[in-house]
Amino acid sequence: MSLILASASPARRAMLQAAGLEVEVMPAYVDEEEIKLALRAEQAPARQVAEALAELKARRIGHIAAQTGDQRFIIAADQMLVCGDAWFDKPADLAAARAQLQSLRGKPHQLVSAVVAARAGGIVWRHIASATLTMRDFSDDFLDAYLAQAGAAVLSSVGAYQLEGLGVQLFSRIEGDYFTILGLPLLPLLAFLRDNQVLRS
Amino acid sequence: MSLILASASPARRAMLQAAGLEVEVMPAYVDEEEIKLALRAEQAPARQVAEALAELKARRIGHIAAQTGDQRFIIAADQMLVCGDAWFDKPADLAAARAQLQSLRGKPHQLVSAVVAARAGGIVWRHIASATLTMRDFSDDFLDAYLAQAGAAVLSSVGAYQLEGLGVQLFSRIEGDYFTILGLPLLPLLAFLRDNQVLRS
Repeated sequence: MSLILASASPARRAMLQAAGLEVEVMPAYVDEEEIKLALRAEQAPARQVAEALAELKARRIGHIAAQTGDQRFIIAADQMLVCGDAWFDKPADLAAARAQLQSLRGKPHQLVSAVVAARAGGIVWRHIASATLTMRDFSDDFLDAYLAQAGAAVLSSVGAYQLEGLGVQLFSRIEGDYFTILGLPLLPLLAFLRDNQVLRS
Repeated sequence: MSLILASASPARRAMLQAAGLEVEVMPAYVDEEEIKLALRAEQAPARQVAEALAELKARRIGHIAAQTGDQRFIIAADQMLVCGDAWFDKPADLAAARAQLQSLRGKPHQLVSAVVAARAGGIVWRHIASATLTMRDFSDDFLDAYLAQAGAAVLSSVGAYQLEGLGVQLFSRIEGDYFTILGLPLLPLLAFLRDNQVLRS
């Protein structure tokens, strides 16, 4: 039995497929910025925002699935990067990536990842996890060389780094689950899928 | 400036290259079994064995490098899997993999990874780290399906699993650094290489 992944993220699809899941991708396009601004104004914590965004994506695709009688689980996820009081998004260009990395330099930040499962009727399961990563106090020379070498790939990640590539050189310390860092707490999701007979126990 | 990697492990080479290092592979062939048996007889702890094996590989290649005046760092690593009193190796065949996974099932085990750096003269740096992974109490049906699907790939890992693939379905809990789990504590190695001007700080 396959899953619907309500996300355009190649990293999440690759993670699920590597784990042996059959995945159909149906990206849900939601106005993340508007929701983040609204929840920020309400002083909502980042984990609540990640959960709200993941739920919204799952519900949107769940609505479409309901119309066709599709009974597969819909999986959606969202990730927030929090450093002190600030939230970070995917940088728009290399100049924004540079400014972002200068803000994160020499400090710890949190990656908060939410994953939810929906069925035609609505949300049936959710899980939120976070990891703490500490950027070392790298030089501006290092930063320039990093951006030149990593290039546009940094624009596809909140935080402007990919830990599975050159981005690992930015860090002095990484604490937390690797899958949560990549944007989807995989072990709790697999347990949920076993409990629901999508995967063999 | 490039490094010499005294290991035939494709996973370790891929990890170093992804992190932006230029790596020349020169595998060191040592009789790991003999050394493990000898140290086991002396009741040495697993971390001492991992360190001894990594050092031996680095020294062997260091000896060759010394003869040609090669001044590059030689990096070597070793990993041990420890479950209670037992040590585990790469399984010889699928039947051995099956027996090994049945022994590990429902219990935590440790992956102990040692990495050392040598220069022509000898060992100049070492780091040892460990991670704890807990296998869930999977069914024999699951195990059969897992081995059928994962196939001979399981023979290339101590523990008969690859966390970056189907093997993640074996686990209920993973605690510790992902790079240590893959067989090479990467962050401490990168810090060493920065301290020695192999990488930009």
